[in-house]
Amino acid sequence: MFNIALLGAGRIGQLHAANIARHPETRLWSVVDPLHECAARLATQYQARQQSLDEAMTDPNVHAVLIASATDTHADLIEQAARHGKAIFCEKPIHLDLARVRDCLRVVTQYDVPLFIGFNRRFDPQFRQVKHALLAGRVGTPESLMIISRDPAPPSLEYVRVSGGLFRDMTIHDFDMARFIMGEEPVSLYAQGSNLIDPAIGEAGDIDTAFIVLKYASGALATIVNSRRSAYGYDQRLELHGSEGLLCVGNILENQVQHYGPNGATHALPEHFFLQRYGLAYAAEWAHFVAVLRGEVAPECSGDDGERALYLADKALESLLSQRTVLL
Amino acid sequence: MFNIALLGAGRIGQLHAANIARHPETRLWSVVDPLHECAARLATQYQARQQSLDEAMTDPNVHAVLIASATDTHADLIEQAARHGKAIFCEKPIHLDLARVRDCLRVVTQYDVPLFIGFNRRFDPQFRQVKHALLAGRVGTPESLMIISRDPAPPSLEYVRVSGGLFRDMTIHDFDMARFIMGEEPVSLYAQGSNLIDPAIGEAGDIDTAFIVLKYASGALATIVNSRRSAYGYDQRLELHGSEGLLCVGNILENQVQHYGPNGATHALPEHFFLQRYGLAYAAEWAHFVAVLRGEVAPECSGDDGERALYLADKALESLLSQRTVLL
Amino acid sequence: MFNIALLGAGRIGQLHAANIARHPETRLWSVVDPLHECAARLATQYQARQQSLDEAMTDPNVHAVLIASATDTHADLIEQAARHGKAIFCEKPIHLDLARVRDCLRVVTQYDVPLFIGFNRRFDPQFRQVKHALLAGRVGTPESLMIISRDPAPPSLEYVRVSGGLFRDMTIHDFDMARFIMGEEPVSLYAQGSNLIDPAIGEAGDIDTAFIVLKYASGALATIVNSRRSAYGYDQRLELHGSEGLLCVGNILENQVQHYGPNGATHALPEHFFLQRYGLAYAAEWAHFVAVLRGEVAPECSGDDGERALYLADKALESLLSQRTVLL
Amino acid sequence: MFNIALLGAGRIGQLHAANIARHPETRLWSVVDPLHECAARLATQYQARQQSLDEAMTDPNVHAVLIASATDTHADLIEQAARHGKAIFCEKPIHLDLARVRDCLRVVTQYDVPLFIGFNRRFDPQFRQVKHALLAGRVGTPESLMIISRDPAPPSLEYVRVSGGLFRDMTIHDFDMARFIMGEEPVSLYAQGSNLIDPAIGEAGDIDTAFIVLKYASGALATIVNSRRSAYGYDQRLELHGSEGLLCVGNILENQVQHYGPNGATHALPEHFFLQRYGLAYAAEWAHFVAVLRGEVAPECSGDDGERALYLADKALESLLSQRTVLL
Repeated sequence: MFNIALLGAGRIGQLHAANIARHPETRLWSVVDPLHECAARLATQYQARQQSLDEAMTDPNVHAVLIASATDTHADLIEQAARHGKAIFCEKPIHLDLARVRDCLRVVTQYDVPLFIGFNRRFDPQFRQVKHALLAGRVGTPESLMIISRDPAPPSLEYVRVSGGLFRDMTIHDFDMARFIMGEEPVSLYAQGSNLIDPAIGEAGDIDTAFIVLKYASGALATIVNSRRSAYGYDQRLELHGSEGLLCVGNILENQVQHYGPNGATHALPEHFFLQRYGLAYAAEWAHFVAVLRGEVAPECSGDDGERALYLADKALESLLSQRTVLL
Repeated sequence: MFNIALLGAGRIGQLHAANIARHPETRLWSVVDPLHECAARLATQYQARQQSLDEAMTDPNVHAVLIASATDTHADLIEQAARHGKAIFCEKPIHLDLARVRDCLRVVTQYDVPLFIGFNRRFDPQFRQVKHALLAGRVGTPESLMIISRDPAPPSLEYVRVSGGLFRDMTIHDFDMARFIMGEEPVSLYAQGSNLIDPAIGEAGDIDTAFIVLKYASGALATIVNSRRSAYGYDQRLELHGSEGLLCVGNILENQVQHYGPNGATHALPEHFFLQRYGLAYAAEWAHFVAVLRGEVAPECSGDDGERALYLADKALESLLSQRTVLL
Repeated sequence: MFNIALLGAGRIGQLHAANIARHPETRLWSVVDPLHECAARLATQYQARQQSLDEAMTDPNVHAVLIASATDTHADLIEQAARHGKAIFCEKPIHLDLARVRDCLRVVTQYDVPLFIGFNRRFDPQFRQVKHALLAGRVGTPESLMIISRDPAPPSLEYVRVSGGLFRDMTIHDFDMARFIMGEEPVSLYAQGSNLIDPAIGEAGDIDTAFIVLKYASGALATIVNSRRSAYGYDQRLELHGSEGLLCVGNILENQVQHYGPNGATHALPEHFFLQRYGLAYAAEWAHFVAVLRGEVAPECSGDDGERALYLADKALESLLSQRTVLL
Repeated sequence: MFNIALLGAGRIGQLHAANIARHPETRLWSVVDPLHECAARLATQYQARQQSLDEAMTDPNVHAVLIASATDTHADLIEQAARHGKAIFCEKPIHLDLARVRDCLRVVTQYDVPLFIGFNRRFDPQFRQVKHALLAGRVGTPESLMIISRDPAPPSLEYVRVSGGLFRDMTIHDFDMARFIMGEEPVSLYAQGSNLIDPAIGEAGDIDTAFIVLKYASGALATIVNSRRSAYGYDQRLELHGSEGLLCVGNILENQVQHYGPNGATHALPEHFFLQRYGLAYAAEWAHFVAVLRGEVAPECSGDDGERALYLADKALESLLSQRTVLL
């Protein structure tokens, strides 16, 4: 049984707490959050304790930390946990500044602790099936990949301002997905974007709609379609076209009921909320991390993966500003 | 927190144990099973204890029993639990003999304990959505209902012999579903059936393929299509045609990935296993039973529902033998 | 080039006229209709002539007649055409009275002319594909067949009164479809029905909603679901379940556009009108009849097929009245 | 009745001949083709005559010409027809050289004859429905458009060499579609492409796989995905995402039959051949041209549309070579 200290008792921390408690080999040992009330509520629910950050880091009963706190604390917490020899599960991103990410990863390397970065979508059974089918040769050589990723609605302006921008905050998931599916690094990148949804997002220096085109050494192409708005729910789709076929992942609908009436046929919308849409993915990534804790596998999303996705996000911004293909 | 004694540690008992443990208001208190090893394993997993039947029935800490033992023990256990004032969750059916069911329900009435019969499919979010849409007037007046229910493969011959026959064992779910959706009792019933899959089933006096036609006082019709075999997974569909539209529930597929290649387009099959297909339904029926324990609602599937579904099964057999419409 | 005399210039006659004209081997030679204006319009459009019935029957240039007149004239016209040695394409049914059908077919046999009965649905590419897939072994042995056939709206009461009733007018198509797909005759039949849509239909002694159950010597079962009303278009579906799989034919939608918006996802309804839904089938049956004219094939739907479908309709009425399985 | 001279008796000419003959207001008057045998066959089939080009151009009975000859003859034939006062239906493109297109259109303007350019896809009922739904406000303001257009297999190398390249030959349809749907001109364009399918295409200086990104003054974005290969048929899809919803056009499948078996569920592939996929579109564009002949409407695809689509193709090549966004 592995004891886990959860750093951060917010929405995503609560989700992870449930997965920790449900897994037969992990136990929620403690909750750390400066908002004591949140921490206390979560600790009570799962018969865990509240700890200060120092207590958790120095507690020999804690085998691993799960970092689900604010983005700007991730790198510091990773370094601290590494120094105390804890295995680390950290929500993406490591940090919004690439140099800081690299410094942080050097510390992790030095203390030689496992670090898993929570690119949850890799663990979605649908997308994973595409990867397996590709490896099994079902579509031949990949020729073009399309990732459609639209949020139901833009985040608050407060969040937008500290988010690092659309590419570092939202597209970073899609960059990781492209890396996961294609299994090779792109050699060039182009980004185009607009501010269509809320002028305040533009005033904050950000965009809300984007198309990115990646090119690979093999000549294969990938495109990412992003929007901060989708009137019809959380739009998460992917298509991989290869020399011998096509693989498509459509949206997961809220239910399977169809209605036919005089005015048309209707069915349910895509699941609206990311915690719902990726519920199975969160559980599966936790199961993977437990296998890491057992020493059976290396983290499937490492610090290096975190760094590379951020690098692509930085380059996308460079392309957006220069309106040229950026070579990688 | 309600303490639950689980009577029966087999496959379905294990499923319920997980739901009991996961629910924030219930705790698996004890496991009762003559197969001590099964009981012990389950008790350990959920930090519960093993008890003998008598211990469980007389333990004042036990608020409710969940009966997941062999079919022929249900009625006895219900009566015993009723006499000890326990709330009762019992897997269907109460008993295969209608007279015994009626005796049993008289005892429940006498001791005035809540009794919930586990017709899990009523709690499937898909079928429930159909019921809600009907009540919301989305298809007008119901005119014809079609229930397709096919198992992936026939059960063992040992099971077939003690099952009470296709109608009492399998169609009983569909009779309950028809009652749930239509909200009225049928006034007549016709059954036709065949033995197509395994001659041994026929030699055991049973059929494996059946069509049932129900007629309602309103003139509305319903048909149930059953088979003990489905080469493509667990086939669980429903259609309700009304004066103003149609509601359809298709199968839940194992995943949403589509493949297009030179030989055609393929997608996943329906979920194969009933515990998987109705996973959400089992969790939802447990949540309902907890609301019953809280005293907030009456059981949505009562002993009366169990009796009525069995009555329809008996009448289906009568029609199959007489090849006439049976008036109810 | 085969010259065709069209007997009947109504809606269905007009459809056939277009197919005759479009086919490179047939020419609309003449139009016969007591409503001279209708006949004249059609003749002009296709550069054909108007003829009286006698003129058409005795015209040596006429190779075949297409009977698209009122139902009660079919048998007389078939006999007359047979006596004049014309090949015959006759819309279903031959006659609503089985004895009259048999008399008529004796005349056809005597004069040895080809007679094709227009069960157009056999030529629908969708249903035909099911038949081919069955013959190719794609679902193993047939176990249950389901035919759903609902008209968008009931016909006029005038029509209902002379239609011969739901079974002879509407279900007859489905009886033929069951015969086509199963390739064997049923050994028993059961029918249940209601008058739900318009009380006047009931007052006219007819029903508007029906379920029929057929049983075959092999033990296979079939069900037919009929309604004179469908709020969502012309509902024409079929499913064949076999020992090794399932074949499903869904409705043909009016278009393939999907809309996703805040209130749900919508798509087009099934094609509403039978001439549209079965447009390809009408063209294909004409191509088949041309092959009959060429002497290459025997009519795929013969007088015998017309007789057998009517026989099943008569027996359905017998079962509806007796509420018993009728042995065939 | 309008008499049409068909210039070009090849595959696409034959398709148009059938539509001309089928339309009640047009007659195939003559066929012009240096390959006399092709012209003769087509003329015979539709009871038309063969003419030399000069005969057709000077024949006062000819109301319009349909230009379906080799691409490099289009501009000359348009000018000649304009000088003889014939209405003109010309297959796309006018010419592969933009300067030549402009010269040609000046002649058309001078002689003031109607010129329709055959961008057939605008008349596809599916895509047209998207345009109507957009105009009806069903998705709010357009934000991103995605056009997927993949041919089943690359054309011959001989064709590739004279095709003007992927952008002028294939993408030109998609540029026109983007213009049709969005209803405004893009302000910038980016193209990325690869040679993945056949090295000989690359040696001929062309690509076979491309992504294009268009940006509009409103900030809306569009992307075009092209491939000369699709293992699963002719892939023709379109999605329009707006502020209030999404419209999707999927592929038209060869049939609607679904098969479920132990190894998965399968359905038909997209229609393989463009003449089949766009059969309704070709008929609809002819009906539109007849309305132009009647003087009721102006050509929906004018010479100007032909010029603008070619201009975008030229700019795409410029972007591909410079790897920058090209401002328009």
